[in-house]
Amino acid sequence: MAVVYKNVRRAESSVVDGLGGLGVATIHEAQDRTGLLASNINPIFRGRRISGSAITVSVAPCDNWMIHVALEWCHDGDILVVAPTSPSDAGFFGELLATSARARGVRGLVIDGGCRDVAELEAMDFPVWSKCISATGTVKETLGSVNVPIVCAGQLVQPGDVVVGDDDGVVIVPRRNAPKVLEASIAREEKEAVSRARYQKGELGLDFHGMRDRLLKEGLTYIDELAAE
Amino acid sequence: MAVVYKNVRRAESSVVDGLGGLGVATIHEAQDRTGLLASNINPIFRGRRISGSAITVSVAPCDNWMIHVALEWCHDGDILVVAPTSPSDAGFFGELLATSARARGVRGLVIDGGCRDVAELEAMDFPVWSKCISATGTVKETLGSVNVPIVCAGQLVQPGDVVVGDDDGVVIVPRRNAPKVLEASIAREEKEAVSRARYQKGELGLDFHGMRDRLLKEGLTYIDELAAE
Amino acid sequence: MAVVYKNVRRAESSVVDGLGGLGVATIHEAQDRTGLLASNINPIFRGRRISGSAITVSVAPCDNWMIHVALEWCHDGDILVVAPTSPSDAGFFGELLATSARARGVRGLVIDGGCRDVAELEAMDFPVWSKCISATGTVKETLGSVNVPIVCAGQLVQPGDVVVGDDDGVVIVPRRNAPKVLEASIAREEKEAVSRARYQKGELGLDFHGMRDRLLKEGLTYIDELAAE
Amino acid sequence: MAVVYKNVRRAESSVVDGLGGLGVATIHEAQDRTGLLASNINPIFRGRRISGSAITVSVAPCDNWMIHVALEWCHDGDILVVAPTSPSDAGFFGELLATSARARGVRGLVIDGGCRDVAELEAMDFPVWSKCISATGTVKETLGSVNVPIVCAGQLVQPGDVVVGDDDGVVIVPRRNAPKVLEASIAREEKEAVSRARYQKGELGLDFHGMRDRLLKEGLTYIDELAAE
Amino acid sequence: MAVVYKNVRRAESSVVDGLGGLGVATIHEAQDRTGLLASNINPIFRGRRISGSAITVSVAPCDNWMIHVALEWCHDGDILVVAPTSPSDAGFFGELLATSARARGVRGLVIDGGCRDVAELEAMDFPVWSKCISATGTVKETLGSVNVPIVCAGQLVQPGDVVVGDDDGVVIVPRRNAPKVLEASIAREEKEAVSRARYQKGELGLDFHGMRDRLLKEGLTYIDELAAE
Amino acid sequence: MAVVYKNVRRAESSVVDGLGGLGVATIHEAQDRTGLLASNINPIFRGRRISGSAITVSVAPCDNWMIHVALEWCHDGDILVVAPTSPSDAGFFGELLATSARARGVRGLVIDGGCRDVAELEAMDFPVWSKCISATGTVKETLGSVNVPIVCAGQLVQPGDVVVGDDDGVVIVPRRNAPKVLEASIAREEKEAVSRARYQKGELGLDFHGMRDRLLKEGLTYIDELAAE
Repeated sequence: MAVVYKNVRRAESSVVDGLGGLGVATIHEAQDRTGLLASNINPIFRGRRISGSAITVSVAPCDNWMIHVALEWCHDGDILVVAPTSPSDAGFFGELLATSARARGVRGLVIDGGCRDVAELEAMDFPVWSKCISATGTVKETLGSVNVPIVCAGQLVQPGDVVVGDDDGVVIVPRRNAPKVLEASIAREEKEAVSRARYQKGELGLDFHGMRDRLLKEGLTYIDELAAE
Repeated sequence: MAVVYKNVRRAESSVVDGLGGLGVATIHEAQDRTGLLASNINPIFRGRRISGSAITVSVAPCDNWMIHVALEWCHDGDILVVAPTSPSDAGFFGELLATSARARGVRGLVIDGGCRDVAELEAMDFPVWSKCISATGTVKETLGSVNVPIVCAGQLVQPGDVVVGDDDGVVIVPRRNAPKVLEASIAREEKEAVSRARYQKGELGLDFHGMRDRLLKEGLTYIDELAAE
Repeated sequence: MAVVYKNVRRAESSVVDGLGGLGVATIHEAQDRTGLLASNINPIFRGRRISGSAITVSVAPCDNWMIHVALEWCHDGDILVVAPTSPSDAGFFGELLATSARARGVRGLVIDGGCRDVAELEAMDFPVWSKCISATGTVKETLGSVNVPIVCAGQLVQPGDVVVGDDDGVVIVPRRNAPKVLEASIAREEKEAVSRARYQKGELGLDFHGMRDRLLKEGLTYIDELAAE
Repeated sequence: MAVVYKNVRRAESSVVDGLGGLGVATIHEAQDRTGLLASNINPIFRGRRISGSAITVSVAPCDNWMIHVALEWCHDGDILVVAPTSPSDAGFFGELLATSARARGVRGLVIDGGCRDVAELEAMDFPVWSKCISATGTVKETLGSVNVPIVCAGQLVQPGDVVVGDDDGVVIVPRRNAPKVLEASIAREEKEAVSRARYQKGELGLDFHGMRDRLLKEGLTYIDELAAE
Repeated sequence: MAVVYKNVRRAESSVVDGLGGLGVATIHEAQDRTGLLASNINPIFRGRRISGSAITVSVAPCDNWMIHVALEWCHDGDILVVAPTSPSDAGFFGELLATSARARGVRGLVIDGGCRDVAELEAMDFPVWSKCISATGTVKETLGSVNVPIVCAGQLVQPGDVVVGDDDGVVIVPRRNAPKVLEASIAREEKEAVSRARYQKGELGLDFHGMRDRLLKEGLTYIDELAAE
Repeated sequence: MAVVYKNVRRAESSVVDGLGGLGVATIHEAQDRTGLLASNINPIFRGRRISGSAITVSVAPCDNWMIHVALEWCHDGDILVVAPTSPSDAGFFGELLATSARARGVRGLVIDGGCRDVAELEAMDFPVWSKCISATGTVKETLGSVNVPIVCAGQLVQPGDVVVGDDDGVVIVPRRNAPKVLEASIAREEKEAVSRARYQKGELGLDFHGMRDRLLKEGLTYIDELAAE
């Protein structure tokens, strides 16, 4: 049951990197509001937006052994995605593992668990999205698997899926859909640029999105003022 | 049941702005420790203190339609206060709505739900206090109401109430009480300045607040040292 | 039952300060993964690492009276460690108490409760680790105790124990163990420096920590690639 | 600020009792999905459905003094509705207060806090809906108010509002709306009886609620079977 | 994106029913500790153990439309497994839907959301495992999918997987593995019967599981008594 | 660091059993509102009240090895008190361990973690207080300690302390204080019997506890009725 798949099919790097130039919220919308990790997964420091190919790691709770195992199979441009088999707040990852990960070309970490050495990770500019910050140590006792499908923070992640993280959280783009999601995201951005310009001029979404008719049809009532208390 | 009250009585702008010069904790104390939103409502970025008049919005969970509706009735100096009718972590508000809100003179948002595009909102310097950061998209399907009394994060908010937010959270000042709360807050600040000066000199609150007698009367016992273990 | 122990045995200041030069995660590991406060205790602002001797304060929920009492017995280099007798999110501590604490030589606060005036505390550079940020006021009605053993965020804290806090959280080092924990922490840091250098060169922990044999013995299987979906 | 309003306008007892014959979910639907307390308010034992007129009590956290004060103003058929001014899990209410409450004609308690003596309360058949079960003691130190509007578990409750509780939770019916909510609830029950009969025969809601057209129009696609993995 | 797969491959009914005669904990162990839903999924009433084939339903938050759609494709012996696309505590399911489900042969419901009418559901003996009990109403506005793979309470569920629920929670057995998991579960039960008999006689697991050597090798120390405090 | 203390000083069995005849809430009050475990520790089934002497067990998260080790040192009348060194929801204890525990004379279990086989445990009438119900399996990999002081659900527990559990939760009585806490609890019960009789007759606590003067002195105001809205 403990298996390491050594090789992973990744999306084209132009697609991966293209998605990294867009926001998590935009991509989530562009793929029909799917793929978002739960909102308790947050960046340990603000201001980074990265994309990469998922190297998935299924670990035992409070045990980071398989992260060491996974690093051997990471390439330039990968992101580690780690999920424990039962909930754990332990600090599975810190500055030493980040040093190793960086040397292997890893761009960042997403973990449905805890992270530690956050000051050092920020100093190194190694981005992490985690459930909590915790110094709790982990052991190296129980096997797990690398590059199997995992459920991380409520989403299915396949090895090689595209992972995008920013200050809003993390979104997973299935590898095969990545090119068309990139296209749809760019289209969405262009549409939003038009909306933004109209909003800036003070126009209302009610008007240029044509919502007024539907509001009336649904029965919205306008009254001048709430009666004096 | 879905109603928009178009006009709202607001407090004097000198009062609203005066309250914005004081801290949330001070105002909360000055109005007898009332009006604080729950402590899980936090700023999406630090370092802003704002005040404004509440435009209240009651929305369906995962539905931001009524925020669009509310923007039409916002004036310079308003703050949107949004509460879903059942709990929701969705990202009801992002950079496009903030662009529209700013164009209408809105100073910020308070929401018992999620917010997204937080990097862009910080770049725009548009302050938001929310329950979480979440990229989850919302729909525009179900009517709600604007400028009705709502319960937001455990507090009753009436349209036109004064809203003050800073790094400590958000406090609501009922419109009619605002002038006297402003006065009481200023008085409190002056009293605190005196205390601060005495504390800085190393005086103890025990002494200049005269607590020693009451401590003794209540039975506090002083012992030199805990017996060796 | 309400007692103030006036004097506390503290660790040598060289030991206390020595521990302050090391990270919470390192110290936690060096003392066999003990002593960490729960991971919901976080710094109110980032970037500080401090150490000090614990002045323990047992308070009633929503009541900060005993913090005033405790300040009288604080020395240069102490850290206040406060735990309510039942859970409370109130804002027990703010800028005025911090002013007094600083004048008494206190280096910071650890509290299993809420803190307020966080913008002011950051401006003063007074570090606090708390369960939440909350402006909720507290009363001065019920006695508690100072310098008794307390349970704070899941850990037993004795007066005079060494407290170390940084961005990863807070660890408690029992006073008597402090010298040997300092030694073990320094040894650990030296060992980590060696590992870091090897990681930076791209070596794998699998190799230089000799994990491969044990992985095989436990039954880890390597497969080239996950079969096509 | 600490006030006791001695008298409360209540709904007709026939209306109050009529609502007690219906379920919380039905009433909540019949008044446009409003009035439900948060879903963390649960009965301390199962199998009771009660209704009554709200006697509201605003208490300090961990302080049950005002419940004693409120009991003096309770009538036959009332329900105590208690909310602390800041969150508290303490055990505000137990068997002794229930004995007193029963002697005053009180039918039950709703509290956004903790309750204790739950075995004894079940033996007495005194129903309580609370946030948790907790033996934590409370004090009698700080004043609060009786029969003022309060926010309890996210809902505004006015004194004299009708309170209905069952295994699904608690719903508040504003006093003035109570007669028409009763009527609407009964109408809803009758409609549901028709639906129930059709469901029992194996008919689909899709058919007798006529949903198929709208599903197609919205774009729902039917496919025979998921392709083999 | 909104798709209904009408037909589902199910496991042999003898296998499905065989698994229903075993406990959730046993099955979870027998399939290498995989497949358990998160521990916040609990039965709405105690004392039932059921098994069935998963009909999966992906719904919008606070929207139960697709449950109506799914019922058309349910067979005797199925269990509905429902997951919202973002977290929701609403009451998606109650007594009317249960009446319809029962008429279609459905044995029960598993939902990562809320359930209502729990007294009626218990009276009908219709078992449900849910995240909470909530009377909150839902809408029928947004499409979802039926019989697609979903993530429910942290586990991937494929249509046709075997679902087993009891007082300990819910476990998912992938359809193809079901026969061998049944076999392994029975073997485990037999082994446990032997252990039980030895435990009942007062034998220690330390002895008949032969743990003593390994404990000593790992360094466990036995001391007569903790030194007097 | 992994130590088993084989012998424990226990309180007199008459004292232990005497405390078991009283309620958790009463004992907690009688020892100055100390010793209660956190309110998230609940019985897995209702209706049992037990007392016993604490055998303390410090376990690794998701690892129940040391419970096996502890059973060897249990006597008639003991209660196992188990705390993991970092938070864990795993199911550390089930019917087989309960069978062994019963054979050793153990009366029940208190655990700041999960429990499984709850239907079987109820059928055996083996009471457990736990943080959750979870079928998640545990391993036997990491040493811990038996009969050392532990922190369990926020309270320090020493081996040999008296543990009392009922439907309200769990309270710890330090061994040396047990005789006088028993006495104080009995005195409290007698006082409560008097109060109960007076409450039953309809007397108000306000009167026979003489609260009216203090209420007036603190400034409580009585008003006939809230002004019409």
